[in-house]
Amino acid sequence: MISTIGFDGDDTLWHNEALFSMTQEKFRQLLLHYVPATDIDNRLYATEIRNLKLFGYGVKGFTLSMIETAIEVSEKRIGAADIQRLIDFGKAMLEHPVQLIDGVRGVLDGLAGRYTLLLITKGDLFDQESKIARSGLADAFSKIEIVSEKDELTYRRILERYAIRPADFLMVGNSLKSDVLPVAAIGGMGVHVPYLLTWQHETMDEAAVLPDHRVRRLERITELSTLLTQLDIAAPASAVTS
Amino acid sequence: MISTIGFDGDDTLWHNEALFSMTQEKFRQLLLHYVPATDIDNRLYATEIRNLKLFGYGVKGFTLSMIETAIEVSEKRIGAADIQRLIDFGKAMLEHPVQLIDGVRGVLDGLAGRYTLLLITKGDLFDQESKIARSGLADAFSKIEIVSEKDELTYRRILERYAIRPADFLMVGNSLKSDVLPVAAIGGMGVHVPYLLTWQHETMDEAAVLPDHRVRRLERITELSTLLTQLDIAAPASAVTS
Repeated sequence: MISTIGFDGDDTLWHNEALFSMTQEKFRQLLLHYVPATDIDNRLYATEIRNLKLFGYGVKGFTLSMIETAIEVSEKRIGAADIQRLIDFGKAMLEHPVQLIDGVRGVLDGLAGRYTLLLITKGDLFDQESKIARSGLADAFSKIEIVSEKDELTYRRILERYAIRPADFLMVGNSLKSDVLPVAAIGGMGVHVPYLLTWQHETMDEAAVLPDHRVRRLERITELSTLLTQLDIAAPASAVTS
Repeated sequence: MISTIGFDGDDTLWHNEALFSMTQEKFRQLLLHYVPATDIDNRLYATEIRNLKLFGYGVKGFTLSMIETAIEVSEKRIGAADIQRLIDFGKAMLEHPVQLIDGVRGVLDGLAGRYTLLLITKGDLFDQESKIARSGLADAFSKIEIVSEKDELTYRRILERYAIRPADFLMVGNSLKSDVLPVAAIGGMGVHVPYLLTWQHETMDEAAVLPDHRVRRLERITELSTLLTQLDIAAPASAVTS
């Protein structure tokens, strides 16, 4: 029987990738002053991946990677005023209002009292805390965990910290790689709710994902309550009486 | 009776401010190509403080603030190659070996078993995790907390999370503002071990700090064990029998 539900933040509770995507469009437009429309997206992605082990995830590292890519792609011709524009793009992202995904407030309110709700987000501590505060959702969660990576070890540690059995835990998120598969791998249930956009680094070949009774997929987060009812009905009697 | 000791990381267990200071020296040298030696340090500090509410603490925000200051101070004449140098200064900081402060390993080993040891550091999640790992000290601590701000609320939450009474808690750190005073204010004991250098933002007028039986000052972290013995002896009998 599921007792605890974990939620991812970015692109599960609130829009995030759309903001990166909008910024990348502005980045492409700015670089058109220096070079013809080349493969800017892939150049930026290559820089981000190269810098990931030093910068981690988040807007500040993304901004530094934009600047580095712009210097590279422009062959050092980019001017200081345009570099300042890139910094301002980053600042605009950090100040951007947090926009909840449709139905999220209702979903959380509907689960409150019946389940323990956790928020488990990955990224920059300061930026995530600011987004959580601005989302207005903090009160819905018993515990909030901001982590630098979401892998099996991360989830094991969190469940141990709060004495939650993996079999009683269900995690909801838009990333198969970060939210769904590591939870399924440690014996919990992973529920995949895809977002409109997925950052290249988080994409996985879905065909490569083995069908597993510990993985579910929903089109929208508003379908979660129906899924939980189905899981309750399907739960073996032994679990109910244990 | 003190049962739990919290340690700050940067400039308490390992050198940090010296690295910022070295980088600022390189920053000044680089800007001399554009402007006479003006008040670069204060210009950079002003940018950092202006950006603090968006960037929080840490090397990535510092690097973005260096770039912004360089653009400003050079009146947009700084070239892309020099901007790349600033990014490389930031990367060098993130990759820099973690150098422990003299005697730290022995202090922690000496307290192990007798006290519960916590590491409570402020800053960028990814960068702090990386430093903790590189410090080789992670195993010395029961719990590690990386926080975005160190105020009374932060310490209250941590103590509540682990069911530690403030009166049983002692915090050791180089910052009066972040490590010592908020802990004393909630009823714990704050031990100030000054570092050679203090970032302007963390400085306080020591005369303004009221003498308080919950605040102590040591010249070196290696004096901690002697202080703990003195506190034990001074503890009222009621505390011993409670």
